[in-house]
Amino acid sequence: MSFELAAKTEAGACLVRLAEHLAEDLAAHAVDHDRAGTYPFKSFAALADHRYFTAAVPEEQGGLGVTLVHDVVVASTRLAHGDPAVAIGVNMHLQVALNILRRWQMGIASGNERRAAAFEASMGMIVNDGMVMAAAISEPGQDLTRPGTVATRTESGWRIKGRKIFCTMAPAATTLIASVRFTDDDGGERYVFAQIPSDAPGVEVLDDWDALGMRASGSNSVQFNGVELPAAAIRGGFPAGDPLPYMERNLTAGVLHGSSSLGIAEAADTFARSDFIERGHGVARAHTRMLAAENAVELSACRATLARAATLLDEHYAANPSTDGTDEQITALFAEGQAAKAFVNEAATRIVDRALALSGGAGYLSKSPLSRAYRDVRAGSFMHPLGVTRAYELLGHVSLGEAPTQL
Amino acid sequence: MSFELAAKTEAGACLVRLAEHLAEDLAAHAVDHDRAGTYPFKSFAALADHRYFTAAVPEEQGGLGVTLVHDVVVASTRLAHGDPAVAIGVNMHLQVALNILRRWQMGIASGNERRAAAFEASMGMIVNDGMVMAAAISEPGQDLTRPGTVATRTESGWRIKGRKIFCTMAPAATTLIASVRFTDDDGGERYVFAQIPSDAPGVEVLDDWDALGMRASGSNSVQFNGVELPAAAIRGGFPAGDPLPYMERNLTAGVLHGSSSLGIAEAADTFARSDFIERGHGVARAHTRMLAAENAVELSACRATLARAATLLDEHYAANPSTDGTDEQITALFAEGQAAKAFVNEAATRIVDRALALSGGAGYLSKSPLSRAYRDVRAGSFMHPLGVTRAYELLGHVSLGEAPTQL
Amino acid sequence: MSFELAAKTEAGACLVRLAEHLAEDLAAHAVDHDRAGTYPFKSFAALADHRYFTAAVPEEQGGLGVTLVHDVVVASTRLAHGDPAVAIGVNMHLQVALNILRRWQMGIASGNERRAAAFEASMGMIVNDGMVMAAAISEPGQDLTRPGTVATRTESGWRIKGRKIFCTMAPAATTLIASVRFTDDDGGERYVFAQIPSDAPGVEVLDDWDALGMRASGSNSVQFNGVELPAAAIRGGFPAGDPLPYMERNLTAGVLHGSSSLGIAEAADTFARSDFIERGHGVARAHTRMLAAENAVELSACRATLARAATLLDEHYAANPSTDGTDEQITALFAEGQAAKAFVNEAATRIVDRALALSGGAGYLSKSPLSRAYRDVRAGSFMHPLGVTRAYELLGHVSLGEAPTQL
Amino acid sequence: MSFELAAKTEAGACLVRLAEHLAEDLAAHAVDHDRAGTYPFKSFAALADHRYFTAAVPEEQGGLGVTLVHDVVVASTRLAHGDPAVAIGVNMHLQVALNILRRWQMGIASGNERRAAAFEASMGMIVNDGMVMAAAISEPGQDLTRPGTVATRTESGWRIKGRKIFCTMAPAATTLIASVRFTDDDGGERYVFAQIPSDAPGVEVLDDWDALGMRASGSNSVQFNGVELPAAAIRGGFPAGDPLPYMERNLTAGVLHGSSSLGIAEAADTFARSDFIERGHGVARAHTRMLAAENAVELSACRATLARAATLLDEHYAANPSTDGTDEQITALFAEGQAAKAFVNEAATRIVDRALALSGGAGYLSKSPLSRAYRDVRAGSFMHPLGVTRAYELLGHVSLGEAPTQL
Repeated sequence: MSFELAAKTEAGACLVRLAEHLAEDLAAHAVDHDRAGTYPFKSFAALADHRYFTAAVPEEQGGLGVTLVHDVVVASTRLAHGDPAVAIGVNMHLQVALNILRRWQMGIASGNERRAAAFEASMGMIVNDGMVMAAAISEPGQDLTRPGTVATRTESGWRIKGRKIFCTMAPAATTLIASVRFTDDDGGERYVFAQIPSDAPGVEVLDDWDALGMRASGSNSVQFNGVELPAAAIRGGFPAGDPLPYMERNLTAGVLHGSSSLGIAEAADTFARSDFIERGHGVARAHTRMLAAENAVELSACRATLARAATLLDEHYAANPSTDGTDEQITALFAEGQAAKAFVNEAATRIVDRALALSGGAGYLSKSPLSRAYRDVRAGSFMHPLGVTRAYELLGHVSLGEAPTQL
Repeated sequence: MSFELAAKTEAGACLVRLAEHLAEDLAAHAVDHDRAGTYPFKSFAALADHRYFTAAVPEEQGGLGVTLVHDVVVASTRLAHGDPAVAIGVNMHLQVALNILRRWQMGIASGNERRAAAFEASMGMIVNDGMVMAAAISEPGQDLTRPGTVATRTESGWRIKGRKIFCTMAPAATTLIASVRFTDDDGGERYVFAQIPSDAPGVEVLDDWDALGMRASGSNSVQFNGVELPAAAIRGGFPAGDPLPYMERNLTAGVLHGSSSLGIAEAADTFARSDFIERGHGVARAHTRMLAAENAVELSACRATLARAATLLDEHYAANPSTDGTDEQITALFAEGQAAKAFVNEAATRIVDRALALSGGAGYLSKSPLSRAYRDVRAGSFMHPLGVTRAYELLGHVSLGEAPTQL
Repeated sequence: MSFELAAKTEAGACLVRLAEHLAEDLAAHAVDHDRAGTYPFKSFAALADHRYFTAAVPEEQGGLGVTLVHDVVVASTRLAHGDPAVAIGVNMHLQVALNILRRWQMGIASGNERRAAAFEASMGMIVNDGMVMAAAISEPGQDLTRPGTVATRTESGWRIKGRKIFCTMAPAATTLIASVRFTDDDGGERYVFAQIPSDAPGVEVLDDWDALGMRASGSNSVQFNGVELPAAAIRGGFPAGDPLPYMERNLTAGVLHGSSSLGIAEAADTFARSDFIERGHGVARAHTRMLAAENAVELSACRATLARAATLLDEHYAANPSTDGTDEQITALFAEGQAAKAFVNEAATRIVDRALALSGGAGYLSKSPLSRAYRDVRAGSFMHPLGVTRAYELLGHVSLGEAPTQL
Repeated sequence: MSFELAAKTEAGACLVRLAEHLAEDLAAHAVDHDRAGTYPFKSFAALADHRYFTAAVPEEQGGLGVTLVHDVVVASTRLAHGDPAVAIGVNMHLQVALNILRRWQMGIASGNERRAAAFEASMGMIVNDGMVMAAAISEPGQDLTRPGTVATRTESGWRIKGRKIFCTMAPAATTLIASVRFTDDDGGERYVFAQIPSDAPGVEVLDDWDALGMRASGSNSVQFNGVELPAAAIRGGFPAGDPLPYMERNLTAGVLHGSSSLGIAEAADTFARSDFIERGHGVARAHTRMLAAENAVELSACRATLARAATLLDEHYAANPSTDGTDEQITALFAEGQAAKAFVNEAATRIVDRALALSGGAGYLSKSPLSRAYRDVRAGSFMHPLGVTRAYELLGHVSLGEAPTQL
């Protein structure tokens, strides 16, 4: 008996069960795609068939109705038990979907029907059109709040040029959510997320993902070679260089990225201990017993940390139904999410390392799931926002009373 | 802005505010008593005056009505901001009080009026008679489930002989809760908690506490030199050597012990960062910034871990109103509490160490609160149940599928 | 400028320069063989062409004359800069060669001409016949001092049956040094190292090495399917189950295994810092600067620890020219070597992890040498003697005053 | 049997034996002075009586003739076994004495008789006049290369004003080596070490040392209230703000500061294990065994790291008999010494912490030497040059190819 995280709502519990069921499917495909470094389209199809991508859409809008960040995060840990490379792609979609949900709720709460309708339309595309969104955000050497990818005006709308990297799930997504910089009518530079259909002319999804781990994530580069978008596609957004709205848009990133790390760690620990028990053994050596105990301690801490950071978001949303909240609140919530991400990313890496050590060498063979976990789990610290180096920088600034001017 | 733990109930929130208020009193006395190694009776009196010791007694029984372990634990972290040496004594009392509350609730839920009445009487003594309980449990070289202190029958009742150590708050408590071994009518050895008035003849509270930290805790030795108790004082209990009922009685120990560690860590981190900011500085060095960031990460994890372990207890109690639950559940809950204790004890030690490092040397002087925190925080790992060595042993056994036969 | 380890003798310095030269060759082949999981025969041939395998044979016997364990170890760190998967195979050969050298020196010092001549013959095979030895020692679930591989008497000699695993460099070695159990004339079980030609009938080198890292090491399984050996091939050895002679035969194992870990760590750290500097950057973030600083600290500690443990062996050999030394000395030296191995194995893993972190994500791509280093470096802890779990067990026993009865 | 560091020369071995002998004296006084926070003049007298302060003066100059930094450092670890609070004061003296030795050797090697004679005179004062030097270097909020203490010209010489802190051994030293800033004839600011007699008018040694640990070190503040010095007392030195000559003067600081940390750690580990063994025990718990094993690993690494960093200095001196060496060499050597200091300071803290944990709580009592070791060992990281924060900053800069412009 252990205390894995549990959903707080009935809809959440359904999603968790679904994730556990799907995880078996995912696991069945994971080994081969890891080895070949190919995207597991069957796993993706299974998720789509079970309407997993509608998780964060309210039931009345046709979705699975999981409206707590906490519950989405818990389900994601279960997906990661099966194939974390798939789970991190799903999380990218869910982060956007949770933002849409939040914006829709705020539109309703504030009586802004136009805004509510716009986000309702996006939810409709997820539910009815099978829209699955991948993030095309990362760029080489990037300034997080000032994309190098640029939208320039054309007679009819906009033309997008730029190169994105680490576009996880790009091979399967129907839509790319691209961070784009454009100049507004007042001459100010703005940062906006553009929805770009994957099959739009000028969109080139490269087949260049070849990494240490998460090899089945399809985290390819994407080239926007002058993609034409209508006038309405680029508007709003926020002033480039301003960390506050950037953080607000990415409040759930920390806990979602943490969920896959935790999932990998849980699966590795369970496998290593079960395997040790099955092999039979006399009195466990001191090192072995301590590895098991230390994993119990850190797994417990990871679960709690992730759940609390997610719950703080849910509580903030509930307490601020119609506004973003204050700058201070957003900074604190983003920092808390990043603290949780940093802790879980790094603790999960330690947990997997101990699971590997517990195997006594057997886990070092390619055929062991531990050798894959060891490679996969190391990705978490690099995933934005925020990679661990930037996260510590932010936390260091905030803790010492300085403004988070630069991310 | 930060995310200190918050109570979940109104009564809990009141207790937290009271604890914050009292912490100022406690802090005012802490320095001198730490230096002299004396017990701060004024701090104790302030707690008693504000009826803090009635915290876990329901309002209808005249107490402050904090019925969630979680909320009691949160308040204890605040007390520890003021003086952790006092807080650990209070926690000992509260652990017993929470057990009384739980037993009373179970008596009512199961319709056992006799039991309910017995525990109601104990609550009455806390509320009306100012009963404050200290634990006289630890013994040198102890077998946790088989006390060396023994009750033998006399014509009129029982006679208690034995030596206890680390009896925190013994100078001020009205009652000592002593773990005692006796032989029942069937010849079986049983472990029981005896309530022994501090002023009973034969009770000798030594003035021998002189330690690295927690110097104001009054954790003296207590000698029971043939203390006479009435017949009703020794009954019930559980078979000596059986870890299950022992764990059940100590389910809340882990989170309560963790609360003082967290309180020390929070206070040290806040002091060190505030002091650093006040001193003014140019660009912080990399090491300094990382210390601040790492503390943010681990404080977040400590808070979450402690809160979740406490909440799991509250949920278990709510789900099992009239029974203890299964052996498996008790083992798992106890292990989870011990995992939380081990994590928070050790992480708090790291946090205080970083706070000290952040001071650049100023904190090493005796006049700095950091030098006291550095000494105080190291106590947590040694506090039973379970000291960290036994905790890792237990967790190692349970994680590898073995019975927790020995604690 | 940095303080890489330097040889103490002129012959050692020559070997270090040769290793540095060969490392370039090795590096050229390493990437492809890592990817394919194949053995780099060209690298092996380059080593043989440059007579690297004669390193520990005295010049008067036709070898390169490196007679200090320290200097052999230093050169091995340089080889590992090029391809650690090749270096660990070379180390296996060198461990045996150093034992031959030591036995030969002891034979001469003690005036035992017969023994001296026997070991001189072995050195002659290395120098003149190109003998390269791979270790066929490891077995599944092994008792280190009681091999499962057995030699039984035949009319003309012995027949060997058993299965070995992790036989690094087996594809290229001319000779397998197999640990074998046999029953002597008195009915006692003995442990002996048998020299078995790789091409002897009944020797089956499987092509089954497929692991997380060290993929080019050719650490295949080897099956001895009734291999016939002459009568003289199996004699001597030591009583099975006796840890003392086992430790004596493996005194150099700790430092040799440590050398490849250090080499990987040095190369990864150098690459990551150089790459960071070349990419250009403004003010490094706190986390980045700390990673670089922490690596400087731990690299310095690794180098010193490895060098001292090797030097203690050289000093012991010099002080005990004709005897093994006392049991206590052997235990202490073996323990010291294992402490060095454990420290360097684990510190090197941390160093590579920091180098990867310093890359900011670029190192996670398969094309980066850091992703290979991350996989390779994790092997060290599992390599016998002793894997880290057994090493800690031994050190724990010895430190607490207990006999190292079981390894 | 273990491998404590051993001297390389006969004179060094004598000093080590002397240190071991004196350590018993020191230990006898240590407890009471720690508790009272007073300086142990008897321990100081014992050192003086045995001419320990002449250790680094050549025999032909009347000293004990220990000319290797390595051997001085080894002896200091033994002194620290007895009382580290005394040992750190002795180290301050020895650092200056080693600089005098080095300067004298350079004067001779370069044929600069005047310089040689000047340093010979200083050695004479140590040998004949019982000169014992304490460092009056540290200042609040200090710029390491630009002292706030200032020498201004008077008609007859110089007047010194300023406040120093952490002047270890100030109660007993005959001479204070004060870092002082003055303006030379060209108007340039220079940093110079001034020898100031402790009993000179205007020198005020406060009795204000009251710290967490090292309570018997007499690390008082010193006030220079217009101390008059002759004209010859202030000359030479180096340009204020230049890190190179500062580092050159402090090349041995890292290893000397490390020696006391190692001494504390060795003593604590030995005590804890011996005490554990003496108490008798059944099978040690996993945590206990791991603590012992991890200490063995880290003690081994500390010894080696300290010894190698000291040996690199000795080798540099031998290779550069008449010059300081290049800036790059000095930077690298200083950085290596600081890496060793950081490693040993921090590892020693971990070792003592484990020794305390191994005691199972007994070590937390004030009467245990472990509780003192726990307080004492934490000082090392704060000791300049360089405190750990500055050390990591320097190492981070140097490792990333940047100049060590600021310390």
